[in-house]
Amino acid sequence: MKPGDCFEVVTADKKVAVMELEEIAEHSATARVCKEIEHTVELPLQVTIVCGLSKKDKADWIVQKATELGAQHFIFFSGDYSIVKWDKKKQEKKLVRLRKIIRGASEQSHRVMVPTVSYIENIKTLQLEKYSEKMVAYEEAAKEGETASLAKLVSRVKKQQRSIKDLHLVAVFGPEGGISPAEIQYLKSNDFSLTGLGPRIMRAETAPLYLLSALSYALELN
Amino acid sequence: MKPGDCFEVVTADKKVAVMELEEIAEHSATARVCKEIEHTVELPLQVTIVCGLSKKDKADWIVQKATELGAQHFIFFSGDYSIVKWDKKKQEKKLVRLRKIIRGASEQSHRVMVPTVSYIENIKTLQLEKYSEKMVAYEEAAKEGETASLAKLVSRVKKQQRSIKDLHLVAVFGPEGGISPAEIQYLKSNDFSLTGLGPRIMRAETAPLYLLSALSYALELN
Repeated sequence: MKPGDCFEVVTADKKVAVMELEEIAEHSATARVCKEIEHTVELPLQVTIVCGLSKKDKADWIVQKATELGAQHFIFFSGDYSIVKWDKKKQEKKLVRLRKIIRGASEQSHRVMVPTVSYIENIKTLQLEKYSEKMVAYEEAAKEGETASLAKLVSRVKKQQRSIKDLHLVAVFGPEGGISPAEIQYLKSNDFSLTGLGPRIMRAETAPLYLLSALSYALELN
Repeated sequence: MKPGDCFEVVTADKKVAVMELEEIAEHSATARVCKEIEHTVELPLQVTIVCGLSKKDKADWIVQKATELGAQHFIFFSGDYSIVKWDKKKQEKKLVRLRKIIRGASEQSHRVMVPTVSYIENIKTLQLEKYSEKMVAYEEAAKEGETASLAKLVSRVKKQQRSIKDLHLVAVFGPEGGISPAEIQYLKSNDFSLTGLGPRIMRAETAPLYLLSALSYALELN
């Protein structure tokens, strides 16, 4: 870069400004604020996407697309019906790779924070006390014509004039093989709502994108 | 298959039934209807997704994901800013491949119709008289905080108690390089609404999935 070039800076408290480089010294540089950017690009609630492990590179593109669509956290887990598992060594390698993809997608979509990603062995080790809203995408619910749960969640979020720090949705998605009856039972008994995402059966990796797009439409475009 | 096995059948007029195979003769087989399936899995309006050509296998996964999400037609075009073009030979090969992907995705998501796909050299050769609603996803609109256009479209669709045959949305998405000022001008002068899809900048292949998910949420889940 040379004096006169512009760049965007995001501060620790998530303010965004367009800066112009003024001067480059030996061990420092000076830039001035050209324009503070007021509008936010972050969803008005925190969303943690929890996905059962599926085959191949599905995790790669779930994190890429869901970062573009505004998710703040990702947790992958080995579901009862997951065909793959990540052992200790694979976990580290995978998480490094996913963090790199997330960083790229965050820059591309001008996010003001970089989503986090982690891995848990079992859905039962989710730390539930963090979340103010809990849902699991459930194909059987969709088949039985469940169409109200997501709209109800949206209307609860709209009513609460709380700050984004306090509004935190956790959304669980099964792996390719689906979510097991035992897992559903555990989630149900912990107040997760069984949520239908429309009448069409989606692949495991498509459902989180549907949810994030629907939330954006309902909370940011209406 | 053997007698006693079940399968789903979709008739030409899009009725769906679960059938049980009863008897297999030399040149024929008999099956009986076990259950007629009443609920529809098709969106309550026709959607044609028109995408500028981007690099690599992006067309492959746009058609796969957008078929899961309910699109009925795909048209790819060579945009002013497209880096790739499909010559005659490549067109045929690509369309055969895309049709195969679409058929697989239709079966997977239990669609009652198989979406169509075609290619046009130029956005100006779109047959506009077919469509009752016309929009183009426009990043500049999104940057300027355009948040009303999609919700207005949804409310127009909800008001019209017309049949799906008469409600037909065409949605144009630029290639990776974006849509050119000349293309926007052409679409604008043909009554396309310039539509923002939320405050985050999405990759070219993500935007159609956002639109379809938002339409499903607004028209099928509310």
